[in-house]
Amino acid sequence: MAAISLSVSTVKPLGDRVFVKVSASEEKTVGGILLPDAAQEKPQVGEISAVGPGKRNDDGSRQALDISVGDKVLYSKYAGTDIKLGGEEYVLLSEKDILAIVN
Amino acid sequence: MAAISLSVSTVKPLGDRVFVKVSASEEKTVGGILLPDAAQEKPQVGEISAVGPGKRNDDGSRQALDISVGDKVLYSKYAGTDIKLGGEEYVLLSEKDILAIVN
Amino acid sequence: MAAISLSVSTVKPLGDRVFVKVSASEEKTVGGILLPDAAQEKPQVGEISAVGPGKRNDDGSRQALDISVGDKVLYSKYAGTDIKLGGEEYVLLSEKDILAIVN
Amino acid sequence: MAAISLSVSTVKPLGDRVFVKVSASEEKTVGGILLPDAAQEKPQVGEISAVGPGKRNDDGSRQALDISVGDKVLYSKYAGTDIKLGGEEYVLLSEKDILAIVN
Amino acid sequence: MAAISLSVSTVKPLGDRVFVKVSASEEKTVGGILLPDAAQEKPQVGEISAVGPGKRNDDGSRQALDISVGDKVLYSKYAGTDIKLGGEEYVLLSEKDILAIVN
Amino acid sequence: MAAISLSVSTVKPLGDRVFVKVSASEEKTVGGILLPDAAQEKPQVGEISAVGPGKRNDDGSRQALDISVGDKVLYSKYAGTDIKLGGEEYVLLSEKDILAIVN
Amino acid sequence: MAAISLSVSTVKPLGDRVFVKVSASEEKTVGGILLPDAAQEKPQVGEISAVGPGKRNDDGSRQALDISVGDKVLYSKYAGTDIKLGGEEYVLLSEKDILAIVN
Repeated sequence: MAAISLSVSTVKPLGDRVFVKVSASEEKTVGGILLPDAAQEKPQVGEISAVGPGKRNDDGSRQALDISVGDKVLYSKYAGTDIKLGGEEYVLLSEKDILAIVN
Repeated sequence: MAAISLSVSTVKPLGDRVFVKVSASEEKTVGGILLPDAAQEKPQVGEISAVGPGKRNDDGSRQALDISVGDKVLYSKYAGTDIKLGGEEYVLLSEKDILAIVN
Repeated sequence: MAAISLSVSTVKPLGDRVFVKVSASEEKTVGGILLPDAAQEKPQVGEISAVGPGKRNDDGSRQALDISVGDKVLYSKYAGTDIKLGGEEYVLLSEKDILAIVN
Repeated sequence: MAAISLSVSTVKPLGDRVFVKVSASEEKTVGGILLPDAAQEKPQVGEISAVGPGKRNDDGSRQALDISVGDKVLYSKYAGTDIKLGGEEYVLLSEKDILAIVN
Repeated sequence: MAAISLSVSTVKPLGDRVFVKVSASEEKTVGGILLPDAAQEKPQVGEISAVGPGKRNDDGSRQALDISVGDKVLYSKYAGTDIKLGGEEYVLLSEKDILAIVN
Repeated sequence: MAAISLSVSTVKPLGDRVFVKVSASEEKTVGGILLPDAAQEKPQVGEISAVGPGKRNDDGSRQALDISVGDKVLYSKYAGTDIKLGGEEYVLLSEKDILAIVN
Repeated sequence: MAAISLSVSTVKPLGDRVFVKVSASEEKTVGGILLPDAAQEKPQVGEISAVGPGKRNDDGSRQALDISVGDKVLYSKYAGTDIKLGGEEYVLLSEKDILAIVN
């Protein structure tokens, strides 16, 4: 069984899926002081690495995604499929699991 | 892994989602006396901080939300995703989880 | 965190929701004698305090509710969200949880 | 909290709901002899006391019910909401829970 | 509470429902020898006693059933509502629970 | 209760159902050597004995099946209703439970 | 019961299904060093062996798949039906269970 080589640049999501690089979040006061947060209330954040072509409409056309590569996003905990590549954590999500853009 | 900076003003909800600042509710009699309520019957209330562009219709257009920034709302307990920012509690909800406006 | 002031008159239900003042039910014989009922078979009754504008149809128009303010209704036990205001019990329900009008 | 007066004649079901007076079933042989049945296989039977105006179609019109006041019906066990009025048992059902007419 | 008289001939199924007289199945070899079967693999078979007028289509017309009175059918175990009448077992089923005709 | 006689030739599936004779699968190497497989990874295979007329479309027409009598198929474990006839095992399946044709 | 002969080349998926040869994944750094991954975060990868003709649209036409024979794919753990043929592992999946192409 020949192994399939994986690298971040080769992952091309299908349909309305997006490939997200998981990130930590930090929060600064107006004065620039970093605020500690309770871990259990930390939102899941990440940066879009790749986006799918969008879901097909009933007439065969596609509904392009509202999210672009490079967008920073907040997404549903427990959603999607976790993948580790190059020592970094990634997650494959459906666009509907993206709650907000936080650019 | 570079951290993503979060602040309330950067949260832009997607689709039919709204970003709500959680609030306490108080109730006054006509004469202005504050009434104590049983905690378990206290409604969840908050103020809309940001609204999404609305869900897409089948023809690709969007159905604008019925709620606007600044509206005070009553929403379903257990709905949505809790987030703490700047020492305040927020929740990301779908518009359908908003039960009533209480401006 | 500033508290949001709640009073019955400010609750404006969204969509097909209605705001109902919970009531007790009583039953009289033709001759006016009050009948005791087994508590577990007592229907949930109440009076409509406020109604939403109705659900949106697919074309963006709204389907007005069949229930009006002042209607006395019988509704599904366990449905909706309970709220206590001014010492009285209220419930926020979807119109589909209203079983019958009992004016 | 003023009580709401209930009587059978005031119950007006909404949508596709029907108000049914629960009945016992009996079965006679051709010769008129009453047959005992195992209780667990006894069908739930009743007589229609009131019918709703029917469900709304997508175009806002209504689909009138196929059942009329006075019809004797066989319905799904466990379906609907039980109500006791005037010492009699009633049940509020959706028309889809009516299995057969047994006039 | 006056009892409702039930007899097989008065059961008129609604919608896409059918009224089926439960039967035993037997199996003969080409030479006419009766074969014993494992009880747990015996299909549920019966004969159609009455059929409903069919489900309503979206335009209000009806989709007539593909099954007629007298058809012998094989149906899903656990489907439907069992009824005993005149010492015989019957079952009220939706047409979709009929797997095959075995006339 | 008269028994209903069953034989393979009388089973006429309804709708999109198919009647499948369960089979064992075997696998040969290019050189013709029979390979043993782990039982738990053996696919369920069978041969189509009879096919239904197809599901009704919304306009009342039928969508003919993509499978024909005699096709050898691979199907979902746990799907369908098992039946034993003439000492052989059969299964009644919906066409959507057929995973692949393996003629 | 005659056995059905199975070989990889005879498996023709139906509808929107694909037949995938399960593979191991490996990951190399830019410098070509193979990285060990935690087993529980290893994505499921495989190569498409055969594709179905696509799901039928409501008008009877088919929606061709976006995936072709030879594509390397990342798919949902727990999805599909596992099959072992010729000493190799395969899986029959719906196209919607394919998360991304990783050619």
